[in-house]
Amino acid sequence: MARFTRKSKDEIGRAPDELFFRGEKKVENVRLRVIDFDSNQFEEVRILKTKEVIKYREKPSVTWFNIDGLHNQEAMQNIALSFQLDKIVLADVMDTYARPKVHDYDNCISVSIKMLQIDDATDMISVENLSIVLTKSVLISFQERDGDVFDPVRERIKNEKRRIRKSGTDYLMYALLDIVIDNYIYIISDLGEKIESVEEKLLDNPDKCILDQINTLKKELNFLRKNINPAQEMILALSKLDSEFINDESQVHFKELVGNINQAVESSDSYREILSDQLNIYHTTISSKLNDVMKFLTVFSVVFIPLTFIAGIYGTNFEYVPELTYKYSYFIMWTVMIVVAIGMLLYFKRKKWL
Amino acid sequence: MARFTRKSKDEIGRAPDELFFRGEKKVENVRLRVIDFDSNQFEEVRILKTKEVIKYREKPSVTWFNIDGLHNQEAMQNIALSFQLDKIVLADVMDTYARPKVHDYDNCISVSIKMLQIDDATDMISVENLSIVLTKSVLISFQERDGDVFDPVRERIKNEKRRIRKSGTDYLMYALLDIVIDNYIYIISDLGEKIESVEEKLLDNPDKCILDQINTLKKELNFLRKNINPAQEMILALSKLDSEFINDESQVHFKELVGNINQAVESSDSYREILSDQLNIYHTTISSKLNDVMKFLTVFSVVFIPLTFIAGIYGTNFEYVPELTYKYSYFIMWTVMIVVAIGMLLYFKRKKWL
Amino acid sequence: MARFTRKSKDEIGRAPDELFFRGEKKVENVRLRVIDFDSNQFEEVRILKTKEVIKYREKPSVTWFNIDGLHNQEAMQNIALSFQLDKIVLADVMDTYARPKVHDYDNCISVSIKMLQIDDATDMISVENLSIVLTKSVLISFQERDGDVFDPVRERIKNEKRRIRKSGTDYLMYALLDIVIDNYIYIISDLGEKIESVEEKLLDNPDKCILDQINTLKKELNFLRKNINPAQEMILALSKLDSEFINDESQVHFKELVGNINQAVESSDSYREILSDQLNIYHTTISSKLNDVMKFLTVFSVVFIPLTFIAGIYGTNFEYVPELTYKYSYFIMWTVMIVVAIGMLLYFKRKKWL
Amino acid sequence: MARFTRKSKDEIGRAPDELFFRGEKKVENVRLRVIDFDSNQFEEVRILKTKEVIKYREKPSVTWFNIDGLHNQEAMQNIALSFQLDKIVLADVMDTYARPKVHDYDNCISVSIKMLQIDDATDMISVENLSIVLTKSVLISFQERDGDVFDPVRERIKNEKRRIRKSGTDYLMYALLDIVIDNYIYIISDLGEKIESVEEKLLDNPDKCILDQINTLKKELNFLRKNINPAQEMILALSKLDSEFINDESQVHFKELVGNINQAVESSDSYREILSDQLNIYHTTISSKLNDVMKFLTVFSVVFIPLTFIAGIYGTNFEYVPELTYKYSYFIMWTVMIVVAIGMLLYFKRKKWL
Amino acid sequence: MARFTRKSKDEIGRAPDELFFRGEKKVENVRLRVIDFDSNQFEEVRILKTKEVIKYREKPSVTWFNIDGLHNQEAMQNIALSFQLDKIVLADVMDTYARPKVHDYDNCISVSIKMLQIDDATDMISVENLSIVLTKSVLISFQERDGDVFDPVRERIKNEKRRIRKSGTDYLMYALLDIVIDNYIYIISDLGEKIESVEEKLLDNPDKCILDQINTLKKELNFLRKNINPAQEMILALSKLDSEFINDESQVHFKELVGNINQAVESSDSYREILSDQLNIYHTTISSKLNDVMKFLTVFSVVFIPLTFIAGIYGTNFEYVPELTYKYSYFIMWTVMIVVAIGMLLYFKRKKWL
Repeated sequence: MARFTRKSKDEIGRAPDELFFRGEKKVENVRLRVIDFDSNQFEEVRILKTKEVIKYREKPSVTWFNIDGLHNQEAMQNIALSFQLDKIVLADVMDTYARPKVHDYDNCISVSIKMLQIDDATDMISVENLSIVLTKSVLISFQERDGDVFDPVRERIKNEKRRIRKSGTDYLMYALLDIVIDNYIYIISDLGEKIESVEEKLLDNPDKCILDQINTLKKELNFLRKNINPAQEMILALSKLDSEFINDESQVHFKELVGNINQAVESSDSYREILSDQLNIYHTTISSKLNDVMKFLTVFSVVFIPLTFIAGIYGTNFEYVPELTYKYSYFIMWTVMIVVAIGMLLYFKRKKWL
Repeated sequence: MARFTRKSKDEIGRAPDELFFRGEKKVENVRLRVIDFDSNQFEEVRILKTKEVIKYREKPSVTWFNIDGLHNQEAMQNIALSFQLDKIVLADVMDTYARPKVHDYDNCISVSIKMLQIDDATDMISVENLSIVLTKSVLISFQERDGDVFDPVRERIKNEKRRIRKSGTDYLMYALLDIVIDNYIYIISDLGEKIESVEEKLLDNPDKCILDQINTLKKELNFLRKNINPAQEMILALSKLDSEFINDESQVHFKELVGNINQAVESSDSYREILSDQLNIYHTTISSKLNDVMKFLTVFSVVFIPLTFIAGIYGTNFEYVPELTYKYSYFIMWTVMIVVAIGMLLYFKRKKWL
Repeated sequence: MARFTRKSKDEIGRAPDELFFRGEKKVENVRLRVIDFDSNQFEEVRILKTKEVIKYREKPSVTWFNIDGLHNQEAMQNIALSFQLDKIVLADVMDTYARPKVHDYDNCISVSIKMLQIDDATDMISVENLSIVLTKSVLISFQERDGDVFDPVRERIKNEKRRIRKSGTDYLMYALLDIVIDNYIYIISDLGEKIESVEEKLLDNPDKCILDQINTLKKELNFLRKNINPAQEMILALSKLDSEFINDESQVHFKELVGNINQAVESSDSYREILSDQLNIYHTTISSKLNDVMKFLTVFSVVFIPLTFIAGIYGTNFEYVPELTYKYSYFIMWTVMIVVAIGMLLYFKRKKWL
Repeated sequence: MARFTRKSKDEIGRAPDELFFRGEKKVENVRLRVIDFDSNQFEEVRILKTKEVIKYREKPSVTWFNIDGLHNQEAMQNIALSFQLDKIVLADVMDTYARPKVHDYDNCISVSIKMLQIDDATDMISVENLSIVLTKSVLISFQERDGDVFDPVRERIKNEKRRIRKSGTDYLMYALLDIVIDNYIYIISDLGEKIESVEEKLLDNPDKCILDQINTLKKELNFLRKNINPAQEMILALSKLDSEFINDESQVHFKELVGNINQAVESSDSYREILSDQLNIYHTTISSKLNDVMKFLTVFSVVFIPLTFIAGIYGTNFEYVPELTYKYSYFIMWTVMIVVAIGMLLYFKRKKWL
Repeated sequence: MARFTRKSKDEIGRAPDELFFRGEKKVENVRLRVIDFDSNQFEEVRILKTKEVIKYREKPSVTWFNIDGLHNQEAMQNIALSFQLDKIVLADVMDTYARPKVHDYDNCISVSIKMLQIDDATDMISVENLSIVLTKSVLISFQERDGDVFDPVRERIKNEKRRIRKSGTDYLMYALLDIVIDNYIYIISDLGEKIESVEEKLLDNPDKCILDQINTLKKELNFLRKNINPAQEMILALSKLDSEFINDESQVHFKELVGNINQAVESSDSYREILSDQLNIYHTTISSKLNDVMKFLTVFSVVFIPLTFIAGIYGTNFEYVPELTYKYSYFIMWTVMIVVAIGMLLYFKRKKWL
């Protein structure tokens, strides 16, 4: 499977309102959790039949449906019916490979974004598509699998003094998206620490293993960027959306999100440049080390060349070579050789070739 | 023929409304297929004479003319007459090398886009210009050759429960363009799989053949990008078009198209970066392998240099060389040589030159 | 003379309405050709005195003045007077080094663009500044030298059935600019063929001569881009111009021009990337060939090093070397040498160093 | 800790109005300084209890609260109460890692920017988050630690002839931001001097230590850019802000700020290019030096090769080698050797290989 | 002093209306020249006291004050008083390091731009800050030193037939800025000639000195770009300025300026690419020359290696080596050696390694 786009031949030509699950099935059963609250009351239930949700539809209190698992076509159909959503909205939700986007429908806003999380056990980054459908009093969030990532929001809702208890669905949506983007920043800063720790090793003792590490980090960062950059566009569009479902007071929060996602994107850009600089430093260091080795070896050979030549001269079998008969010749040859060798070494030293 | 632009000298200076076929003739005969439907009835016929089409012109039901083959000037003239289209519209349709574009004429919208398909037999990507002319109740699609790529749409039309049966020509146009863009994504994801499969081979055992593969993939990707990127601009223009022929309800679908084409372009950008990274990794690996070889060979030579020098010393013919007469000299020489060689090897090992 | 900008010191500080010819004088005599037509009549004359033109000024029919040669200050002055043009307009026309631009004056529109043509004899690209001054019923085109590049338009005007005969000066301007841009595309596609033909040679047998060819093509392409890119901006400005001299019906044609020039610019961008890729492939191939040579030669030397060492051992003059006296020693030495050499070659072969 | 983003896991999911200090605690105690002035009077006091500030709230004179230290949650709460600020405003102020931004609240404007300063002792750049909250008659500035960077502004306020005494809080804000941006420019110009001083050393005698210096400067510059570039966006947004708290006369000053921050960003871009050019020059020089060394050594070896070969020839033990018996052979051999060596050296000299 | 930004510590925190000279003092005395003209009269005087200027303030004729030298605070104060200019305007004028900008004040427009000139004696480019303050009937130009660069404008003013005599201060400002930008283009074209002349040398015989030349040209071009690029922004802003001081008829001239500055910027971009290509060509040529040398030397050594080996074989002292006793062995050895050498040379030739 290609990592950056996935499209199989039989997916071509489907109607936009066909409820067809595109993605991997990540949980067995669809799970529905309902939180209903206003400034006075709070209720948290787990429901089993999608049809039970109807009673919440017309209640003026804020109702948050959290649905884990998207592959069940029938459940989806029921949800669409219960909330009178166009089938296009849910078809979008079920396409987990789609690009983050905002759609302003007549009776709802639909938002989708990639949720990134580090799995603490494997240190791998998992991707999940989060879709949010927003009406005046109901927010439905669709996740691909069970997750406790939104627990801090649930805690805040339980505390009746918190702003979230007095605000509408738009503020709730902000709170959820804020957690998603905070996770982006957390992951980038985690990756950033790894990248910065490479730096020290790089200057001490660069080896092949550092290179592999840099290439791996680069691939991970590219993967992050591929998921985060389209979200920037989406968040910006959301902050500019003029919809009846978003109060003016919430605008300031969505602007905050824009600032955060921009910070995430800028940081990932910075780390990308740092990685590219590290690669350059690696190659420079490696090649400069190799050059030192080759220079040393070459100088070594070069010193022996004239010595071997001298020995060669007196290995000739000419009948008349005056030096051969002189008694101290052999020792003189050694002296000359040592002088030549030391002279060359000094010369190379002065020239800074050694 | 140049791959990216084609213009021969005699094409310069033609009038914009001259019906002149620019392109390769890809089918022998022009073929006309008519599908006429509304929510109640469905009719599919193949007509032979272009004049027969007139009767569909004023019918309120949605009529889809599919014309395969563009080279027949007379047929084109008849179509223009039958639908009261300006000759400029059809001249555009016949220029199969033109850039994807949208034109908002007085009595129609004209859209053109490159249709890319993988030929399963040869694994080659074929390009074809698709033009769509849209009026209130008629959609005419022009293809360069026979094709069954739009069959899923035909199927959906036959099923009277589908949204397409209740919608107008704008929705039909969306459905056709959706298939074209889905094909883009499919081709990119197909190419992407090839690119990602190179990666593994690259780390195992890079050879010249991998390099050729990367260069080929790069060329293919450039070819894709050259065809897809201008379409992005066109689709964006289409989604912003304010025309009587496009209903407000269809806007959401055209926005969907924008998202899809953006995803296609972004994926192709990602794969381009990946290819460029792969090229870098290839060169790094190759050059580091070469360096290892050269280092090994140099060290090998360097070890023999002092040994050969020692042998040379005792090959001199000086009359008085004390060592020569000592009985065990020869064996001592061997010992010295072995010690020197082992010493050097240990030194190089410690310096990590081996 | 610098190729990309030309400004001599004494040109600094001239008034904008000073009729000063900046450029090379490319023809001896100024030539005036007049074509006057409407849907009913057609007239083509060559006039000698610029003053004769006055009679066409007030005629409602479309009048096209084609002026070849710009260096004659007096003729220019007369033209300005005859058509009541501001001297700034003509000063602009005479500055053949200026950047392509559109100016919307009170009583006319002035357009200038670089006209590129391949000289068939020398295969060189010639540049010429084309200026067009447009009023309601008169179009004046200024060329630097005689040329028959607009002949297809003249032919179309002669044919009374053509749209051009029924249209105004704006359509005529479109037709002229269309030819200029078609020539851009033709030149790019011509260059593109050369670039693509390099590719094949590049893979077969890259030599220094290919490198020179690539560098030459690169320079030619840069030259093209330098001339074409500013035209893109100009054509876009023209298509957005809201002027009384341009009818709404002509807008569609100017949009066509925008599409064409965009295609030209994109193609030149593509070819630029291709050239840059080719350079990379060239360097990679050359360096990989060199590496192969060096590796071969090094391996060759390395094989002889131990052999020479063995010979050296038995060239020593020690009194007691047991092997020397054994009868078959010499042949054993040869055997050992051959075994060592073959062993090394096999080792290198297995290591893929050969 | 990662240098470019910092986010710990427990920070995810906090409410936007929770007063939670994100950053390092840089001073022990929170310090409050109040300056209250109008064109007639001036008063400077240090207050100890945050509740004392209430009396300044309704005074029409300009009041500037300078608060050093942000970690005290209770003090912050009191400030929020005293000035009737939304808790979101102060929660923002306490998030010292946030991106520079402007927020236009109902009853105030909030601005935050990174304040960079060179510590003279260590020559290190310190970063501090400066937040400014602006109402009609009150400006509150929040700094992370005590600082005298705004002393010039205090001096100007004391002088009753200065414009600042006659202007409102908007002018005061301008004056503070102006100092921040002047510090940017000062730091860049300081870094710039270091960068330019490298250049001279680079051409004289490039060594490893220069490379480290360039890499260090590059890292410092990246750090600067990461802090300054987002400020550019913020200042631009501020200059375009249409708020009741900013007088029209102050617009010209904010435009000045835009010019200054643009200059800072452009200069940092220029220095970035210079650093990258310096890296290139370094590598070119180093590699050209190495090449000279290798060329010299290779030529040296090559000269001895034929000489050693000649000596080898006459070291053979053939019974019949005519030259061996001739008396002057040995001297002739020397002569030949010297001639060969000189000939080769001359040849290499002429070929410019030496 | 840093070349691209200059800011000393004590400049931080100055008030925007403080008349503080930032820059180098380039002339000793401030000089004032006044030209006063309308279509009927012309007057040119040199005045000594700044107070004399008051009489021109209310005259309806166009008055051009040219002030050379900006360091005299008192003179500046007087000018501000005489023309009732805000002190901010003059403080801006005195900051010669500021970025080119336009400010639209209530009673004047202020424009500043860098004036570049080639000093003919030293061939160095000098930079000077030109500020222009424009009111309805008065234009004040501030230069850092005496200069005759505006003499062509003075000449045109003297000639009463010229447009400038009939136009207002806005046209005068255009004329001055036009000269500044013409100087940009002149300098770029001068630099361009140098750059293009390098090209020829580059292909003939690249040496270290060419490299230094390219690096110097690169630095000069960067310096130019740093000064010209911000001017582009300024000129664009000026052309879009909607001010009472600029007549509609002058708009066309300011648009002309936009075209010229765009041409300057584009040309500098082109030359930048050319320089970067030249650097590449240089490195390619140098490295390909080095490779040729190394290849030659390596082949040379390799040819001798088997010959020396053969000689070594017959230098061994084995008692029984059959070849040694054969009479023609020595000559056969020579023959074999020559055959081997020629064989190898032919092989290398065929392989194109020589």
